[in-house]
Amino acid sequence: MTQKIVIALGGNALQSGKDNPTAEAQLEVVKKTSEKIAEISEKGYEIAVVHGNGPQVGRILLASETAREVTPPMPFDVCGAMSQGYIGYHLQQGIKYALNRRNKNIPVVTVATQMIVEKDDPAFKNPTKPIGPFYSKEEADRLHTEKGYEMREDAGRGWRRVVASPLPRKIVEIQPIKKLWDSTVVISCGGGGVPVIEHRDGSLEGVAAVIDKDFAAELLAEQVDADVLLILTEVEKVAINFNKPDQEDLQKMNLREASQYCEDGQFAPGSMLPKVEAAMKFVRANPEKKAIITSLDKAVEALCGKTGTTITFS
Amino acid sequence: MTQKIVIALGGNALQSGKDNPTAEAQLEVVKKTSEKIAEISEKGYEIAVVHGNGPQVGRILLASETAREVTPPMPFDVCGAMSQGYIGYHLQQGIKYALNRRNKNIPVVTVATQMIVEKDDPAFKNPTKPIGPFYSKEEADRLHTEKGYEMREDAGRGWRRVVASPLPRKIVEIQPIKKLWDSTVVISCGGGGVPVIEHRDGSLEGVAAVIDKDFAAELLAEQVDADVLLILTEVEKVAINFNKPDQEDLQKMNLREASQYCEDGQFAPGSMLPKVEAAMKFVRANPEKKAIITSLDKAVEALCGKTGTTITFS
Repeated sequence: MTQKIVIALGGNALQSGKDNPTAEAQLEVVKKTSEKIAEISEKGYEIAVVHGNGPQVGRILLASETAREVTPPMPFDVCGAMSQGYIGYHLQQGIKYALNRRNKNIPVVTVATQMIVEKDDPAFKNPTKPIGPFYSKEEADRLHTEKGYEMREDAGRGWRRVVASPLPRKIVEIQPIKKLWDSTVVISCGGGGVPVIEHRDGSLEGVAAVIDKDFAAELLAEQVDADVLLILTEVEKVAINFNKPDQEDLQKMNLREASQYCEDGQFAPGSMLPKVEAAMKFVRANPEKKAIITSLDKAVEALCGKTGTTITFS
Repeated sequence: MTQKIVIALGGNALQSGKDNPTAEAQLEVVKKTSEKIAEISEKGYEIAVVHGNGPQVGRILLASETAREVTPPMPFDVCGAMSQGYIGYHLQQGIKYALNRRNKNIPVVTVATQMIVEKDDPAFKNPTKPIGPFYSKEEADRLHTEKGYEMREDAGRGWRRVVASPLPRKIVEIQPIKKLWDSTVVISCGGGGVPVIEHRDGSLEGVAAVIDKDFAAELLAEQVDADVLLILTEVEKVAINFNKPDQEDLQKMNLREASQYCEDGQFAPGSMLPKVEAAMKFVRANPEKKAIITSLDKAVEALCGKTGTTITFS
């Protein structure tokens, strides 16, 4: 029986580490990631892929700002769209080949995706996500005055621009994504989607913001009525008392347990916490469905219930 | 009666000129272009859009090479994929709004597109398309030795990398494009598609090359069985004896006439010639269909037969 799955790929599914941040190295990592995704397809899942873009969009912005005297720098929303093209291209090339090797002739396609965020999302009042290069105090002041950028001093290393991380509200391209779903591996909502606000006249406008890709994947999973939301990260299982002598890896959590752990501060903000929150949101909206948090390497085993952390309603 | 149309957008549909090559200026031009595309939709056409990317991918490469000491430069195929994300995002935002304003709730989506080219395309033996920044003789020699780039001296202004312009052979993502066609405005084959070669084991590999977007649009039009291939450029009509006292603007050409004009050297290589050749290829393959070459501003009139140059089989 075919099940629908939305797979959220973390940073380690796209690059081998900070020591080799080239596109060529990314392509090699993506090839391995693609084999894992094809294995999941072999298990009878219809797949959609959502990926992060933090390091990639950071480097695109860095190159753009570094070259600003030579060619006009790109707005951050455009950098995000560029990262979707870049990462999507690698993934669709890699996944297509991995499926072909398994005699599965399924098309793979990247859909450039805009994500509507709310103009009055409280996150815009308190931008926290640093992006792009470090600047001197003088440059930071100039950028603030000229461009209205919010600039923050970053632990003595210089000044950086900070942007908000609002919640994703609506996937603009959801109709074509749904239409493709049953015949195609769709890569969408890259980097959480390019954040746009919707004006009263229906026009969309890109904004400089960072959308959490796990929340974007969760929204997609709800919209396409997925059976499983699979969030891939560095670790095989979610743990409580993480990195302490009494660390406990969790095989499963229901909504009540997960809420309690969140309340107890068990999960690191900006790291495991948003993943658990996205998983909770999905099973709250779909009490019969499940979310799984695990590593790329253990994904197939986790889908068979052998490892990973499965989050369910009750 | 609904007709299928593939629209190939030239450079002037995306930017206002070399004096303001910013993303912000592009977005303003794209908004106007989108109104024209929405007008065509109103006339009862199902639309697919193909666009060029020359200036955009040039600036992406320039920024990437300029910042190479700070962050690793991007391979040219990746720059192409990035330009698809960038331009596609602007177009899908602009066209969606222009359609909404006309109460046409049609989804608009950009599909990242790979285009298979032949490894032994004769173009690879004679690369002619200059890309990226100018280098000194020493830098050029280093890039040739280290990266294998073909470098050419460019009219006393320095050395530039040159790449081949092979013919597009196969649209890798044609199935999802076809699937979306009747319900969605699909933007695909941006910049002619990211050029890839297909290895014997079925794997694809990006190559540094430039694909003519008019030939890519022609291939797409054939594959989706379009009724019209509309190639938009700077001029309202194709002319013979161009820029001479006896210049004659052409209302129509059949295949025989067009062949004769090409033989007579009436059309400039790299400019009007490939457009006429793409138009000829389309009507040769589809004798009942037509191709039109005109300007963006005159596109709707040209579709009504009032202006533009219409190319037919006989």
